Amino acid sequence: MRIAFLGLGQMGAAIARNILNAGHELTVWNRSPDKAATLVAAGAQQRGTPAEAAEGAEIVFTMLADDRAVEAVTFGENGLLTAKDGPVHVGLSTISLDLARKLTEAQGQHYASAPVFGRPNVAAAAKLNIVAAGPEAVLAKAQPIFAAIGQRVLPVGDAPLLANLVKLCGNFMIMASLEAMGEALALAEKNGLDKAKLFEVLTGTLFGSAVFTNYGPAMLERSFRPAGFPAPLGLKDMNLVNAAATDSRVPMPLLGTVREHLLQTIGQQGEDVDWSAIVGTIAANAGL
Amino acid sequence: MRIAFLGLGQMGAAIARNILNAGHELTVWNRSPDKAATLVAAGAQQRGTPAEAAEGAEIVFTMLADDRAVEAVTFGENGLLTAKDGPVHVGLSTISLDLARKLTEAQGQHYASAPVFGRPNVAAAAKLNIVAAGPEAVLAKAQPIFAAIGQRVLPVGDAPLLANLVKLCGNFMIMASLEAMGEALALAEKNGLDKAKLFEVLTGTLFGSAVFTNYGPAMLERSFRPAGFPAPLGLKDMNLVNAAATDSRVPMPLLGTVREHLLQTIGQQGEDVDWSAIVGTIAANAGL
Amino acid sequence: MRIAFLGLGQMGAAIARNILNAGHELTVWNRSPDKAATLVAAGAQQRGTPAEAAEGAEIVFTMLADDRAVEAVTFGENGLLTAKDGPVHVGLSTISLDLARKLTEAQGQHYASAPVFGRPNVAAAAKLNIVAAGPEAVLAKAQPIFAAIGQRVLPVGDAPLLANLVKLCGNFMIMASLEAMGEALALAEKNGLDKAKLFEVLTGTLFGSAVFTNYGPAMLERSFRPAGFPAPLGLKDMNLVNAAATDSRVPMPLLGTVREHLLQTIGQQGEDVDWSAIVGTIAANAGL
Amino acid sequence: MRIAFLGLGQMGAAIARNILNAGHELTVWNRSPDKAATLVAAGAQQRGTPAEAAEGAEIVFTMLADDRAVEAVTFGENGLLTAKDGPVHVGLSTISLDLARKLTEAQGQHYASAPVFGRPNVAAAAKLNIVAAGPEAVLAKAQPIFAAIGQRVLPVGDAPLLANLVKLCGNFMIMASLEAMGEALALAEKNGLDKAKLFEVLTGTLFGSAVFTNYGPAMLERSFRPAGFPAPLGLKDMNLVNAAATDSRVPMPLLGTVREHLLQTIGQQGEDVDWSAIVGTIAANAGL
Repeated sequence: MRIAFLGLGQMGAAIARNILNAGHELTVWNRSPDKAATLVAAGAQQRGTPAEAAEGAEIVFTMLADDRAVEAVTFGENGLLTAKDGPVHVGLSTISLDLARKLTEAQGQHYASAPVFGRPNVAAAAKLNIVAAGPEAVLAKAQPIFAAIGQRVLPVGDAPLLANLVKLCGNFMIMASLEAMGEALALAEKNGLDKAKLFEVLTGTLFGSAVFTNYGPAMLERSFRPAGFPAPLGLKDMNLVNAAATDSRVPMPLLGTVREHLLQTIGQQGEDVDWSAIVGTIAANAGL
Repeated sequence: MRIAFLGLGQMGAAIARNILNAGHELTVWNRSPDKAATLVAAGAQQRGTPAEAAEGAEIVFTMLADDRAVEAVTFGENGLLTAKDGPVHVGLSTISLDLARKLTEAQGQHYASAPVFGRPNVAAAAKLNIVAAGPEAVLAKAQPIFAAIGQRVLPVGDAPLLANLVKLCGNFMIMASLEAMGEALALAEKNGLDKAKLFEVLTGTLFGSAVFTNYGPAMLERSFRPAGFPAPLGLKDMNLVNAAATDSRVPMPLLGTVREHLLQTIGQQGEDVDWSAIVGTIAANAGL
Repeated sequence: MRIAFLGLGQMGAAIARNILNAGHELTVWNRSPDKAATLVAAGAQQRGTPAEAAEGAEIVFTMLADDRAVEAVTFGENGLLTAKDGPVHVGLSTISLDLARKLTEAQGQHYASAPVFGRPNVAAAAKLNIVAAGPEAVLAKAQPIFAAIGQRVLPVGDAPLLANLVKLCGNFMIMASLEAMGEALALAEKNGLDKAKLFEVLTGTLFGSAVFTNYGPAMLERSFRPAGFPAPLGLKDMNLVNAAATDSRVPMPLLGTVREHLLQTIGQQGEDVDWSAIVGTIAANAGL
Repeated sequence: MRIAFLGLGQMGAAIARNILNAGHELTVWNRSPDKAATLVAAGAQQRGTPAEAAEGAEIVFTMLADDRAVEAVTFGENGLLTAKDGPVHVGLSTISLDLARKLTEAQGQHYASAPVFGRPNVAAAAKLNIVAAGPEAVLAKAQPIFAAIGQRVLPVGDAPLLANLVKLCGNFMIMASLEAMGEALALAEKNGLDKAKLFEVLTGTLFGSAVFTNYGPAMLERSFRPAGFPAPLGLKDMNLVNAAATDSRVPMPLLGTVREHLLQTIGQQGEDVDWSAIVGTIAANAGL
């Protein structure tokens, strides 16, 4: 298939590469053009605007940093909406429910959301979990691409925003899991219990899930740099959860707690720590 | 071995039965004597006081409701400390760190803590996870009994209170997990996402742990009666965590949130709901 | 002076009336034109757009519901920025720090913020407290008008956003005060103490401030309708505080608590209760 | 009257002195006997046990550090209950509702609670606010003494625990007020607003109460040593509020927040800071 891919950050570049590797014809665009060099060397064609990249493609994928970037690429000058024969659009970014609604209104049966779970190394290994929602025809068309970039597609409904909602809930659950384990670890350590021992017992019994496999070493060594997912991006996502909760009138006190710990973490340690550094903040607040 | 077992509630009775089934000689005591009938019919010998039950036993196990009951049975009139040739004491109850310290001071090398994870059906199936801490000699002696009642022993140190601390952390993690998932489910439902679908995606990816296998059906059906573990007992345990956190100067805001939700749950729904009913309270607070 | 006044809701209409009463020449505009009738009958001149109303005025005051309304009136079609000989602009609305920054950038030495404390009856009595920040020349020019509408001007700095920040802090403090007293009242009542008695002792000693004089009757009678200041507007303001706290990395857990109680209040009781209804929600959560 | 006074800490010594100054005959007792020297020099008679001090007195006042001390003095060896012709007992200490119940059960019509608001300098000036509850006859008898030590008596009911409840609510309100103002000050400072200016505007309008007059300087200068009321005592009192809230099923999230800030403050800064140091902790958490 002929595919357009917009947004070549760490995640986007890794995903685009797998699309190329799977034998598809790829045009790419990125705001900073130099990020495309490796892909171009591997056979991708680079374009100067989103609309040009989208022209002639069967599907355009977007993988961008935030709502503002997605809005610019879609609704802005030379954005997707100005492309001739606008292709279907599959949004992989983590965006707000509001923006998902707006994209759905603008692109109707041509838009689906498919945010992904997995960090850049998972993306590079084509092992992403893809949460997908949107018109059946769009999802069917995108199926071969999903197969090339992820290990599994998890369809959650017709309305695209539902996939974004699942993604936001997932990121909230990561933070909530770290908060819970972080508080338990601090309590253990202050009472003379080896925190690695506690972690082993808890994850060896009722709490043995991938989130703790992923974050265990960082939590136990309190090593939060370099950032796999910087705390300010985590805060941005928690703010999106907060916006959804506020709009739909859902009190989420645990969300409040993790947001406050993210703010403290960033305010005290700077913008370049991993979001799991809330575990260090919890320990510091206990005098550790 | 000759074993004494004190405390024949739902958990205690199930555990004692497995000790008997494993061929050990068993004397039992319970504050309400009639609870012993089934065990006596199966071959146990009933005694009128803790001290009498302990007499001649190699190990005495206690499985009691709270600190007060353990204190009465140990330090009270005709309590364990008055038994001739005091046997070693293995405490299975969920008690405070303070009481664990007090028992250690009083019984020294004769006391170990071995609280268990698992509900009555798990106890009946001899599948408990046993967290053990105390003098090596005591734990070694108790090993055959542990093998008869549980699937695994998790040793966590020499000081008995460490096992109680792990148990408290575990119960805190259960409540924290329910709080997190409860908030996510409420957010999903208020935004039009099938909550069973969210649960499936989350537990099918990063959050697939036994705690959600155990509590999933109750959470999704919002069915919190009859109580497997009544909310007031859950509150009691969270109060023990809170006491440990207060004494050791560890701020635990997520603990605060689950305690408040337990208080609201009990205050609004009564004393006979399961502790997982905080999930229902979270939903109700969102207007669901 | 010739004054333009944009925004004739409950607050705006009362303030505009006092300007007229003080003998100034007044042109007015409101999105729903019929709201101007009483003022026109009293001598004001009505215009069809913000720009027309502003034309020829020495000062234009805006008193609008939220950021969006202020943006439309300022930057939109026929907005203030399109007025000939643009007069100085004094913003009385409760807006975000971000919008205050944007207005300052656009209007420079011609813009000041002057949000007010006081409900409609206080506005009608010309007893508002006016928090003012901006270029000295603008504030000096506006002084006679401030004198006509308020009892006091509280200057807080040169940068207009500082006045908006003070206003947001003030509204946060109102909510925080109600939260604190609400929790104390619930505790009192559940333990058999007459809550009016507690209120009397507290406000008669260390806590005798106007916020409790204003809200005491509603709190004690749990009477939250009709709304003096509807909960959704209170939530909007707390969201503005939250945005400022998030942007400047300030953890504010008490803000989190009041936001959650506002969400629960609105989610359970609807959009038409007063923001002080969080006191009722606190009581209900305690089973009262 | 012949009065016995038990407990000569900072508060107790100042109060006892005023009783002596008013011309009453005074016997005193303190656990550390040397604390009585100044009072003895001024005419008081010192006794070796609570029971001896109480003998022959018309009223015995207790002013002790915590529940444990009051229990020892009342129920312990040579405690009040063993005194001949047991006089009426007026408890000035800040104690738990549970202990107030227990004292009422033990001493019936001879016990009243009369905790006080005011720091040592206020006690020395005989300006305390006395919250009183108990049998009318006891309060009537104590009236001349109340007049000698305080500026006002605030009667709140027949059941003694009601006075203790009011005192606990008052201390909670102090912490809650500092939490609220502390969060507002941090937000102001991080956004470029002079925090003294914010404080002046807030206390000059809706929030002008004595609690801020008392704590304003410490808050603004972030000067929390030496402690007027050490944070660990504040924590003790918040724990008593928490016990009351837990027992009566009242969720108090703001209480949770101040308890966590006290724990963090003590854990990070030690046991000798003033309880108002939570304001410094809030600022530090914001990176200030």
